[in-house]
Amino acid sequence: MNPIYIEIIAIGDELLYGQTLDTNSHWISSELDKVGFKVTRRTTIGDREDEIMRAFAEAEQRASIVLITGGLGPTNDDLTKPCLAKFFDCEVAINEEALEEVTAFFKKRGRELTEVNRQQAALPVCCTKITNAIGTAPGMWFDRNGKVFVSMPGVPHEMKMMMSNIIIPKLKQQFRTPSIIHQIVRTIGIGESFLAEKIKVWEDSLPSHIKLAYLPSTGEVKLRLTGMGTDEKALKKEIDSLVEKLLPLAGQYIYCVGDHPIEKVVGDLLRDKGFKLSIAESCTGGYVSHLITSVPGSSEYFLGSMIPYDYELKMRQLGVRPETLEKFGAVSEPTIIEMANNVRARFNANIGVATSGIAGPGGATPDKPVGTIWIAYSDKYKTETKLLKLTQDRLVNIRYTSTALLGLIWQNIRK
Amino acid sequence: MNPIYIEIIAIGDELLYGQTLDTNSHWISSELDKVGFKVTRRTTIGDREDEIMRAFAEAEQRASIVLITGGLGPTNDDLTKPCLAKFFDCEVAINEEALEEVTAFFKKRGRELTEVNRQQAALPVCCTKITNAIGTAPGMWFDRNGKVFVSMPGVPHEMKMMMSNIIIPKLKQQFRTPSIIHQIVRTIGIGESFLAEKIKVWEDSLPSHIKLAYLPSTGEVKLRLTGMGTDEKALKKEIDSLVEKLLPLAGQYIYCVGDHPIEKVVGDLLRDKGFKLSIAESCTGGYVSHLITSVPGSSEYFLGSMIPYDYELKMRQLGVRPETLEKFGAVSEPTIIEMANNVRARFNANIGVATSGIAGPGGATPDKPVGTIWIAYSDKYKTETKLLKLTQDRLVNIRYTSTALLGLIWQNIRK
Repeated sequence: MNPIYIEIIAIGDELLYGQTLDTNSHWISSELDKVGFKVTRRTTIGDREDEIMRAFAEAEQRASIVLITGGLGPTNDDLTKPCLAKFFDCEVAINEEALEEVTAFFKKRGRELTEVNRQQAALPVCCTKITNAIGTAPGMWFDRNGKVFVSMPGVPHEMKMMMSNIIIPKLKQQFRTPSIIHQIVRTIGIGESFLAEKIKVWEDSLPSHIKLAYLPSTGEVKLRLTGMGTDEKALKKEIDSLVEKLLPLAGQYIYCVGDHPIEKVVGDLLRDKGFKLSIAESCTGGYVSHLITSVPGSSEYFLGSMIPYDYELKMRQLGVRPETLEKFGAVSEPTIIEMANNVRARFNANIGVATSGIAGPGGATPDKPVGTIWIAYSDKYKTETKLLKLTQDRLVNIRYTSTALLGLIWQNIRK
Repeated sequence: MNPIYIEIIAIGDELLYGQTLDTNSHWISSELDKVGFKVTRRTTIGDREDEIMRAFAEAEQRASIVLITGGLGPTNDDLTKPCLAKFFDCEVAINEEALEEVTAFFKKRGRELTEVNRQQAALPVCCTKITNAIGTAPGMWFDRNGKVFVSMPGVPHEMKMMMSNIIIPKLKQQFRTPSIIHQIVRTIGIGESFLAEKIKVWEDSLPSHIKLAYLPSTGEVKLRLTGMGTDEKALKKEIDSLVEKLLPLAGQYIYCVGDHPIEKVVGDLLRDKGFKLSIAESCTGGYVSHLITSVPGSSEYFLGSMIPYDYELKMRQLGVRPETLEKFGAVSEPTIIEMANNVRARFNANIGVATSGIAGPGGATPDKPVGTIWIAYSDKYKTETKLLKLTQDRLVNIRYTSTALLGLIWQNIRK
């Protein structure tokens, strides 16, 4: 099987001038990698016709598949469509199906179709339209001499939906790829180097066609096993048995064999057990609730939250005792215990959890530096607390604390 | 002054396969832009000699300055240095100064210098060494026919220190740069194409040395004016006066002349006016509160939130009347009005805002499809509501609604 050369071209001055971080190319690379396509080059260029035409011509020389993002908006600085028409030497005309789709898009939102919007349905006649289910700019698929050019919008969620639902399946049909199997194992509550030590013997024993990667992110570490071969079934079986051998070494940190985030795993456990959750968030300011409610169907187990950001509200709305706050302060173990217990009782939930701390950059005291954060878990049998000592960075602290709290729930309800 | 073509080449399989997000290229673009250098192209390639040599040759054809990151580590998969030696046709030999630096680096950490580390001090003899103050791989500067190639480590903080302290000052000495001024104008509450129509006359009248870009994201559109010239002060004045002329056309949508997000602009207004904010979030599940509290110092104006996700809690904790819920449902104008008014009253705030809707994918009814979402603003003089009809995508709906709610606050307190 010959290797397939794949290139990504991202178009937009905002990328070149450092105003927008190009996360699209990264996401596309990662999704293609999962199905056995390896990207060989990525190019970023600005909104200039000569640059775009040159990049198309160069990519066509080298690659079999060229994926293009950006430059499809309705305004004058968007040049991808006219450049593609020129490159493939064909006319641009209104595509009736695309016009129906964009008309329906605006109608659904109770808005009139303007001439500018109407022009979004104009496509080079030699391309196959790719429906944009959640936006107004259709994608375009071009075939020439066995090579494929695909153009997608730069808006991330529109591009992602097209890639996942249409483009990747179509590429898999048109190009053969080797069997690649990925298995993600997600861990929480242990750092990368400590985990590496715990599983060293196992890692050293991996066969050469199976690779291990550590993918750390805020508050957790993902392990990714990647196997390459010709017999997909045998490969899958081999990887499953390797994961089995991993469990005795690090099972207490593994919350998911698979790639579900902690908020989904915790949600499934809550649903299965018929538990209802309530949350009192202070320093995390709503981020834990956002994670929980980002999972579809979370209303089945999530009752609600109280965010008593203000000192007074901790007493008035959540019933934390004034003497507790006065004696120990809002960032203290006695306060976090009352917060978790009270939100559970007041919201009539099985489980109450809470966060309180100094996210920074302000608010520190001599004995409570920025990054001092308490979290707690409460059910009818017990209340468990944990003190975190985190960073100087507000957003890192918010995210880390939220992950740690979800980890604390998981540890308590997993059995 | 001729434009200077600058290219960035990022080298590393981990970038191409989507394992590591390339933030280096973004940072370099942004730093160069600040001093008037415009990056014209960015290329990402893997750890393969033929690909690297080809990318060097192509970049030399097009550009005057080529900045390379990555592939300088001590292991065999790091090919940048041998490729550069080959490209510039010169020997690699131990650089005595570099050897002293790497020896001192290890000595300071109490570690012996291994042969592998010693080899990091070997450099192509035709390059100028760039000291790495915080790592072991030196950078390299090559001059040929008036063109410059610079190689830097891929480790972000090492690369950044070299760029800021040595490379950018040296590039500024060697190349004269035009003055470049960017001005961001952020708008909310209007789509890209509608905005484009409103400001068409103004856009058409822009002089050729000033470019306009539309940068849409969920719920808002940024405008970016980029001016290029020789006299920075005159350019700044010209752009300021263009922005002045934009205000009568689209002022009602412009929440920031500058690049602050809506949650920061709303926060500053709340602080300036001495207003206290409280939030009742249902369908957004904490995301509005998270945005508000992501801004440092938000405790000065944000009292707290209630997230009554459960139907019962809307009555028990927020005091929405049972007859309102029964007659109109949780996703209705009468309910959202009570939510906003009640959270304001109960939390003793000046302003109460609320969200309630069907984020999806479940929960739709025949007359309330997924994406039906009510938002409301309440102060002591009035209550204002807005009905949004959004998408099928849960996270898009949550984000769009949150931005729209912040926009509604802004519209009501801006005066």
